[in-house]
Amino acid sequence: MNILITAGGTSEKIDNVRSITNHSTGRLGKTIGEAFLAQGHLVTYVTTPQAVRPSSDSNLRLVEIETTNELESALLDEFKHQTFDSIIHSMAVSDFTTEATLSEDDFIEKLAAKLTTDDSLSDLANLTEELYHSLDEISKSIQQEKKIPSKTDRLLLFLKKNPKIIAMLKQEQPHTILVGFKLLVGVSTEELIQVGQSILVKNSCDFVLANDLEEIRGNQHKGILIDSDGQTETAQTKNEIAQLIVKKVEEKWRNQ
Amino acid sequence: MNILITAGGTSEKIDNVRSITNHSTGRLGKTIGEAFLAQGHLVTYVTTPQAVRPSSDSNLRLVEIETTNELESALLDEFKHQTFDSIIHSMAVSDFTTEATLSEDDFIEKLAAKLTTDDSLSDLANLTEELYHSLDEISKSIQQEKKIPSKTDRLLLFLKKNPKIIAMLKQEQPHTILVGFKLLVGVSTEELIQVGQSILVKNSCDFVLANDLEEIRGNQHKGILIDSDGQTETAQTKNEIAQLIVKKVEEKWRNQ
Repeated sequence: MNILITAGGTSEKIDNVRSITNHSTGRLGKTIGEAFLAQGHLVTYVTTPQAVRPSSDSNLRLVEIETTNELESALLDEFKHQTFDSIIHSMAVSDFTTEATLSEDDFIEKLAAKLTTDDSLSDLANLTEELYHSLDEISKSIQQEKKIPSKTDRLLLFLKKNPKIIAMLKQEQPHTILVGFKLLVGVSTEELIQVGQSILVKNSCDFVLANDLEEIRGNQHKGILIDSDGQTETAQTKNEIAQLIVKKVEEKWRNQ
Repeated sequence: MNILITAGGTSEKIDNVRSITNHSTGRLGKTIGEAFLAQGHLVTYVTTPQAVRPSSDSNLRLVEIETTNELESALLDEFKHQTFDSIIHSMAVSDFTTEATLSEDDFIEKLAAKLTTDDSLSDLANLTEELYHSLDEISKSIQQEKKIPSKTDRLLLFLKKNPKIIAMLKQEQPHTILVGFKLLVGVSTEELIQVGQSILVKNSCDFVLANDLEEIRGNQHKGILIDSDGQTETAQTKNEIAQLIVKKVEEKWRNQ
């Protein structure tokens, strides 16, 4: 099979020396990659600079990206040249990218100026609307600084939504077996499965691996693999998760 | 001599899976550390998880920290037990830490509620004051989420100033030879020296190494070492910077 794996965590620049990083060691992705390679599959492995990656293998090709935008371009480029039998999308992708950074003083000055040129401040409905409009204008008017000033006591960072990568995978590769991932923190097993299922339906995944940060300690890594029939299977280590994903993807591929 | 070196870059948590990171490979710190070790000095080396560090040496002791607060505690702890002949503070320390994260909807709702309970919105002076007060109350009222919600289109991050580590070094260790660092981006040599000198005076440094991100490419690394007499000396590589700092610190120590 021809497999695409994404792993690691994207980061979004705030300025030339700072960024917002999604932590991911990439160890689960590496384990999954090595499990597919061990079965003789071809693996295109898209990852980030800080993440660990599978040991080199003649069937492994690495692609490195940093930001969500770079990830999107790299994937669209792959999809132009290759058809993947399965996509394992384990990368921790930033939901948000930085839109503007400004000091509290600057923000208040701009906001006060916008509000006082408006006449309808006495009405709550209009005020809310006016605030949305002002915030939108302010965040779009800020020129990104090379390095944000350190003199202010409070800094405001405006973040805007990144494109949802997982949503476009099945659109671009309709016949692929898509495995999505959802990481939550400190929720019940019921909630984990419920959120995983909604991700699966929304993004036309064949499987979703749902896991909870509080149940990951080194190689101990509880993961619940949910399939499109609502069946679940639970693994307790990174290796078990990798074996389970390889087994389920191979089965589904053979039965297609 | 007994030397303390800080190197790498701190990071500040946004939630359990994201943080704001100050990028620093730690390669300059590693080179400086190895240069001091090569002269037989004792080195306490405070660094961050992602940064490279000097090769192991019987005279080297490593201390690992992540956030600016952890750095402060670790240094105060060292200062209780040791007196350092010199402190080389090359770590890229976050100027800001996260105070609150909220969705645009949430922010606007809270701000509108605060503004409409106030009667003085027609007056610009009062509006500005009211906005400061509201922002302060909103940012302090937010409970840190375990994982910030991804549903909103725009997210606001409130960052507040971290304690200035460099400012306390000479207070805590008045007889140490203090070397500060200042990284700017895309400025003239004149501005670099001027900002470096102001950092030196403000923090009672003996030397400041001023450098510009745009003049760092691999091992090519232009650095201007400024001393308290206003003299400057320029190095072109990480190794030259390290040798220059060791030489100047040793000279100053012998002449004390």
